[in-house]
Amino acid sequence: MMKLWGGRFTKPTHQLVEEFTASISFDQRLAEQDIRGSLAHVKMLGACGIIPQEDAEKIAAGLLQLKERFEKGELAFSVSDEDVHMNLEKHLIEQIGPVGGKLHTGRSRNDQVALDMHLYLKEETSELILLLNRLVQVLVERAESNLDVIIPGYTHLQRAQPILLAQHFLAYAGMFRRDVERLEDALKRIDMMPLGAGALAGTTFPIDRELVAAELGFSRLYENSLDAVSDRDFILEFLSAASIVMMHLSRFCEELVLWSSTEFGFVELDDAYCTGSSIMPQKKNPDVAELVRGKTGRVYGHLFSMLTVLKGLPLAYNKDLQEDKEPMFDAVDTLKTSLILFAGMIETMQVRRENTERAVRQDFSVATDLADYLVRKQLPFRQAHEVIGKLVLFCIEQGKFLADLTLDEYKSFSELFEADLYVAIDVKNVVEARNSRGGTGTESVKHQLALMHEWLKGQ
Amino acid sequence: MMKLWGGRFTKPTHQLVEEFTASISFDQRLAEQDIRGSLAHVKMLGACGIIPQEDAEKIAAGLLQLKERFEKGELAFSVSDEDVHMNLEKHLIEQIGPVGGKLHTGRSRNDQVALDMHLYLKEETSELILLLNRLVQVLVERAESNLDVIIPGYTHLQRAQPILLAQHFLAYAGMFRRDVERLEDALKRIDMMPLGAGALAGTTFPIDRELVAAELGFSRLYENSLDAVSDRDFILEFLSAASIVMMHLSRFCEELVLWSSTEFGFVELDDAYCTGSSIMPQKKNPDVAELVRGKTGRVYGHLFSMLTVLKGLPLAYNKDLQEDKEPMFDAVDTLKTSLILFAGMIETMQVRRENTERAVRQDFSVATDLADYLVRKQLPFRQAHEVIGKLVLFCIEQGKFLADLTLDEYKSFSELFEADLYVAIDVKNVVEARNSRGGTGTESVKHQLALMHEWLKGQ
Amino acid sequence: MMKLWGGRFTKPTHQLVEEFTASISFDQRLAEQDIRGSLAHVKMLGACGIIPQEDAEKIAAGLLQLKERFEKGELAFSVSDEDVHMNLEKHLIEQIGPVGGKLHTGRSRNDQVALDMHLYLKEETSELILLLNRLVQVLVERAESNLDVIIPGYTHLQRAQPILLAQHFLAYAGMFRRDVERLEDALKRIDMMPLGAGALAGTTFPIDRELVAAELGFSRLYENSLDAVSDRDFILEFLSAASIVMMHLSRFCEELVLWSSTEFGFVELDDAYCTGSSIMPQKKNPDVAELVRGKTGRVYGHLFSMLTVLKGLPLAYNKDLQEDKEPMFDAVDTLKTSLILFAGMIETMQVRRENTERAVRQDFSVATDLADYLVRKQLPFRQAHEVIGKLVLFCIEQGKFLADLTLDEYKSFSELFEADLYVAIDVKNVVEARNSRGGTGTESVKHQLALMHEWLKGQ
Amino acid sequence: MMKLWGGRFTKPTHQLVEEFTASISFDQRLAEQDIRGSLAHVKMLGACGIIPQEDAEKIAAGLLQLKERFEKGELAFSVSDEDVHMNLEKHLIEQIGPVGGKLHTGRSRNDQVALDMHLYLKEETSELILLLNRLVQVLVERAESNLDVIIPGYTHLQRAQPILLAQHFLAYAGMFRRDVERLEDALKRIDMMPLGAGALAGTTFPIDRELVAAELGFSRLYENSLDAVSDRDFILEFLSAASIVMMHLSRFCEELVLWSSTEFGFVELDDAYCTGSSIMPQKKNPDVAELVRGKTGRVYGHLFSMLTVLKGLPLAYNKDLQEDKEPMFDAVDTLKTSLILFAGMIETMQVRRENTERAVRQDFSVATDLADYLVRKQLPFRQAHEVIGKLVLFCIEQGKFLADLTLDEYKSFSELFEADLYVAIDVKNVVEARNSRGGTGTESVKHQLALMHEWLKGQ
Repeated sequence: MMKLWGGRFTKPTHQLVEEFTASISFDQRLAEQDIRGSLAHVKMLGACGIIPQEDAEKIAAGLLQLKERFEKGELAFSVSDEDVHMNLEKHLIEQIGPVGGKLHTGRSRNDQVALDMHLYLKEETSELILLLNRLVQVLVERAESNLDVIIPGYTHLQRAQPILLAQHFLAYAGMFRRDVERLEDALKRIDMMPLGAGALAGTTFPIDRELVAAELGFSRLYENSLDAVSDRDFILEFLSAASIVMMHLSRFCEELVLWSSTEFGFVELDDAYCTGSSIMPQKKNPDVAELVRGKTGRVYGHLFSMLTVLKGLPLAYNKDLQEDKEPMFDAVDTLKTSLILFAGMIETMQVRRENTERAVRQDFSVATDLADYLVRKQLPFRQAHEVIGKLVLFCIEQGKFLADLTLDEYKSFSELFEADLYVAIDVKNVVEARNSRGGTGTESVKHQLALMHEWLKGQ
Repeated sequence: MMKLWGGRFTKPTHQLVEEFTASISFDQRLAEQDIRGSLAHVKMLGACGIIPQEDAEKIAAGLLQLKERFEKGELAFSVSDEDVHMNLEKHLIEQIGPVGGKLHTGRSRNDQVALDMHLYLKEETSELILLLNRLVQVLVERAESNLDVIIPGYTHLQRAQPILLAQHFLAYAGMFRRDVERLEDALKRIDMMPLGAGALAGTTFPIDRELVAAELGFSRLYENSLDAVSDRDFILEFLSAASIVMMHLSRFCEELVLWSSTEFGFVELDDAYCTGSSIMPQKKNPDVAELVRGKTGRVYGHLFSMLTVLKGLPLAYNKDLQEDKEPMFDAVDTLKTSLILFAGMIETMQVRRENTERAVRQDFSVATDLADYLVRKQLPFRQAHEVIGKLVLFCIEQGKFLADLTLDEYKSFSELFEADLYVAIDVKNVVEARNSRGGTGTESVKHQLALMHEWLKGQ
Repeated sequence: MMKLWGGRFTKPTHQLVEEFTASISFDQRLAEQDIRGSLAHVKMLGACGIIPQEDAEKIAAGLLQLKERFEKGELAFSVSDEDVHMNLEKHLIEQIGPVGGKLHTGRSRNDQVALDMHLYLKEETSELILLLNRLVQVLVERAESNLDVIIPGYTHLQRAQPILLAQHFLAYAGMFRRDVERLEDALKRIDMMPLGAGALAGTTFPIDRELVAAELGFSRLYENSLDAVSDRDFILEFLSAASIVMMHLSRFCEELVLWSSTEFGFVELDDAYCTGSSIMPQKKNPDVAELVRGKTGRVYGHLFSMLTVLKGLPLAYNKDLQEDKEPMFDAVDTLKTSLILFAGMIETMQVRRENTERAVRQDFSVATDLADYLVRKQLPFRQAHEVIGKLVLFCIEQGKFLADLTLDEYKSFSELFEADLYVAIDVKNVVEARNSRGGTGTESVKHQLALMHEWLKGQ
Repeated sequence: MMKLWGGRFTKPTHQLVEEFTASISFDQRLAEQDIRGSLAHVKMLGACGIIPQEDAEKIAAGLLQLKERFEKGELAFSVSDEDVHMNLEKHLIEQIGPVGGKLHTGRSRNDQVALDMHLYLKEETSELILLLNRLVQVLVERAESNLDVIIPGYTHLQRAQPILLAQHFLAYAGMFRRDVERLEDALKRIDMMPLGAGALAGTTFPIDRELVAAELGFSRLYENSLDAVSDRDFILEFLSAASIVMMHLSRFCEELVLWSSTEFGFVELDDAYCTGSSIMPQKKNPDVAELVRGKTGRVYGHLFSMLTVLKGLPLAYNKDLQEDKEPMFDAVDTLKTSLILFAGMIETMQVRRENTERAVRQDFSVATDLADYLVRKQLPFRQAHEVIGKLVLFCIEQGKFLADLTLDEYKSFSELFEADLYVAIDVKNVVEARNSRGGTGTESVKHQLALMHEWLKGQ
């Protein structure tokens, strides 16, 4: 088929080339945004007298019909019309006649596709922010309803010091809150209007870009036409923020997988979030946690894909940029589903208190506090550390825990030990002793919860 | 819907979880391999007496019917049956009755999916090798049919020394030849049979894995069951080799984009491999070259996606591994189309000799040979280099080229210059002077062509 | 050597393990930050009565001496003391005696190293913002001093429409301005105080974290102790923003390499920013532009390195996190040098007007305006596009440009052409016709310059 | 300072540019290779009569002295001499006089640096292969000396089926063996001789490249000069293989971290491979395992860095390629240390049999065999799976394991159960039942060990 741009050509496009270079198979996803952008554009064309007002109205009406047909799934798209822009323009002209051709006045596909991408990503980023807020909300609720649960806190996956489970949940709430901030900041650069850049140099028509921006709800314009059609930094910034969200999720998922194991046994994920094995009848697998963790790779991959595409690319539009869409769409989809399922999984999982309680009893993670006990009895910290280190070694050899030793046994390591040591190493006391701001003591955790509520209210 | 593995569960799977964890939307692409693997497996089950021979035959017949129905597009796949394995098993049982359930004896989905992946990637890698051979063939042909074309050779994108265009083509032929070697080496580790590993530990049935391997044409077995179901290094190795292929293509594409520019003008890509602009009537864009270059990012991204998925994953199967398929499929598709179109683009492009000839005349890239001329007249190289440097500077200031200067002008820089200098800097002579092995002289290039033909014959 | 933590151990550390796990070889770079953080910490310890005021003063004095010795290069660091924290603590104790041991009260290396990283990155990010501002300033100046230079604007590296060189510079100014915004936003999450988190759970001492934050100039605290010591999202965010800066630089570098080539010849880079060849006397290579472009890979690599390290890592501190420093240091260094040299290169390069002028004359990039000319004569745009396409093809076959054709020749393509067409395709008129907001017309560019000046003033 | 290539220049290089573009700070690491390459080159120059034999001998003698001085650390390198090649050449000339200048005849830094890289990487890859062989050896030994240890095998980190610890070790042995194969295959493309390519086009001197290759022990020549100096695919292939090695190590490290946790407790890493905490006296951290896992990110990052550098780079040499060295050096160093320490850690770790034994007793991972038991009693597998699923659920609710239930309790789920069920679910029997090739039964494992010994003998 001869192309709209065929005048300068002496041969048609190779069939496989046509398929290779067409984007309609994936950019049809931007149809709604494309129509919305066209509506704003044509309204401006009419208002500025660039096309007759009645033409503008005819086109607008046609676009609305197109939108309706699209939503009903009645629009057929064709590879030979390359992309969503040409497909829609063709449908428009078929529908309302040659006047439809005036829609493209004063714009080019280069600024049009940039507009569609900004519109799309602005909506989706806002949606993702809501989902992250919702996740923080769930974490806050689970923290509040489990305020008395103590678990071992780990460093190097070795038990370090006992902490409230709520403290653990709030650590992630803090991370996801920063993810929200990051996406909100990214929005400032997503929320910029490129239309009016034309192919690259602006347009000869007396367009009013502020009008279009206002119509579409954009806060800023791109102030340079080349910049508007060449750069995709707003997508990179989004993919970076998305990668960090996935990184955070992957860490929590790793912990849920650990906590669901026979060995840890701290939580029981709801059956609805697990699957079984077709062979092994006892299996209940934390599939969702594993898959979200795995999908981190997918989003990282998209970021690197786009970084590679843009590296060393001269201005302005190059066909390489067509590769910007699929990674963005897939990253948005992956995050949305991951955030929804992750929140649901947290909301429905059960804490197995019998196991968390046993864990913090059968444990050396109160050792720091035992050293501090000696320090309070005036032993220099380095010596206290040494004494407790030897005590721990003794326990391991005896198959005992610190709480199991007799006072006599204690005294054989240091005469400073008295019966009050057992109070000092009571797990609850150990936790409550850390009420410094941000610490794991209940008061501190309540303060954190209050701050988080306040923030959520402001969102 | 209750799952096959539902006995241990008290609740059904969440609907969105079902969709999230199901792989049927993309792994249906392995249906042919899955059936082929099942045919080999059931043949072995019968031969080893693990199931009655007549059951084996019934199942084999059912599988063949399934294959036919699949090829006709008559098999419907359902998300609630999770993946291609369960979907096909269900269809089989519906078709031939409960005896179909015996097919799964002595295997698990964990080794089954690994088998499918190996089968798939083995075929596709072989196909890609053929496409690379074809591309080398095209380059050899274009080298031979343009043996007299001289272009500037560049370093730092500055003209350095004139070379034969054929030499340039053969540089890439050498790269793609190594790509073939690399894929052939990767094949050794793709061509390994995992079936028989069971879920992770082997099976209690007296299976004969050699029989299955022979039936399916595999050269080696995985000798350890955990390894067989846990590792995806063969996919990583493929994606690495694929990334290097794309890297090579991206470099050549970059050059085609440069060479097609008004500024270089060395080649004219065929209209069939270009597209125009809907706005700018003069435009003829090298879309295919740009898009192949851009798609390099996509394949790199897939490699990094898989590297991330596998990092730090404990043995054996984890759900994260489900993320191995889409990157592999997409990398295969991208390479195939890119190689086909790239070869076609090279095959059909026209060399614009009027421009290449002008370029090598209006150029300082014979300066090295002018320095060598002085060296032959016994001037130490470092001094000769200095003299020619100053000559070049003089030319630039005068807006002249080396061939334009008079002998007197030459002599004002060094008394050693004689009229024979003009012979030394004749571009053809300059090229022919480099007949060292691998050099750009015609004899050397012909030798390279002979070696390449020999290699192609051996492929 | 026996370690401070050796009580629980029965064997010393393997020598190679000691070297492998020690970070002093690279984290000594944080010595100044470490001392600064310690000064604030000890001041707080004294103020809160956690240690006697006079001890606090003694320690502070010791730290200041340490700082002086460090700045003079008089402090020796040892691998057996693992990291900068332990090395400095040891030096302190050697200097002021056992009282120095009280400095570590109420903190741990886990929150200490996090503090150092935040301090370091906060300073360096601010420094990078200044360098980016400076680069924008240079671009603005070069735009202003070359306001009359017209170059071909490209899409697909094919000449598209003529633009002002200033418009091109301002496109990058816009990108770097967004880079500044991005770093300023990243600063919000870098500018958070982790100290007081202890090993992971807070501390039992009545510390005052607000005091420390105020002393060190931090705007926010980490409100959760686990979060404070576990997350490195602030480094990821920095590396993402840094990667985008490098991406922008790499694009401009690519263009400078192109523009410096014989074929384009639009600019002459200053000798001070180029190097030559030891073999080819005529070579002047745009090394800086190439190397900055190449170093993009390095920064991307660091981002991917950190993303990999953090993926799937359980809370809280894990040794893997030690890998956070070298990528960050190297990214900071790379950006700083790249920005300084890039700005210098732009500042000193010469525009070769004789070449830019020839380029825009010998060119079809006014074709859009010729089509618009016909549109103004009432020819529908699609037909006009077709006519001009054929005209361009005719020119190419004749080896002519649009301005070279006679009116008769024009009329043979369309009767609508009149003599005023030559005005329409005058390059200057073509450029000036695009004065829509953000367009390449001089008025529009002056408006952009005014906006940029205003922004720079606000920085 | 004026450069050797300064004739064409009117200004010296900017000081910071000189530092930025110089590579001597890191490429001095190639000094030994550079000298070795020069020795072979000069021997050839003499043998071919390109320079007088006595000059060749003088230069060779000078090079050997240089080597000695370098090994003694007596050679000073200077940034103003840019790189290792120019620094050494300068030293040579200072040492033996102007005749030293003849060494560079017929070569260029472009092919010289490529040669150095090939020489370096060839040696280091061979060294890495030895270290991998050694690691496989250690795994085999540990497998043999723990042949009776049973551990839970996992899928989804849920206990799946009991396996021999030896089977687990052999899974990794299989992976590392493929890593060896991969590096051996990569060696084929590393083991190629680029020298003689000159700057890009070959040389005008009658060199004998075969002679040089033979002298240096290379198996193949690059047959095309542009290819020889432009491509770095051999480094990419190495970095890919290195990334896969690190991926394998990271998985094993993750497991060692898990196995060292209180919760798993399967192994006790040797004190020499662990470190403690300066605060928490009980801590013994698996630092080496964590850090090797973390360093995976570093090697992945280097791969991505190089992929980015090479993407879209036109032929032949560009300054971007200077970025090829640091990633390669660092990847080599990281792998070497990681492999040595990892092998030592495996060699010295203790298996805590009391814990592994308890784990496999208190476990549902024999459930598959219980289902198989029912299948042998003619219950269809799907029904058997359902019965055992319900049994497991009953056990969980009762806080019991399968071996704890009475026969009566069993019979309440299915009348098919008889007393012999207890034999079927004895862990040892369960393991031994999987003697299919590659399975976890002792005979199968012994067979695997025999194959591995045979392979090691062949290495």
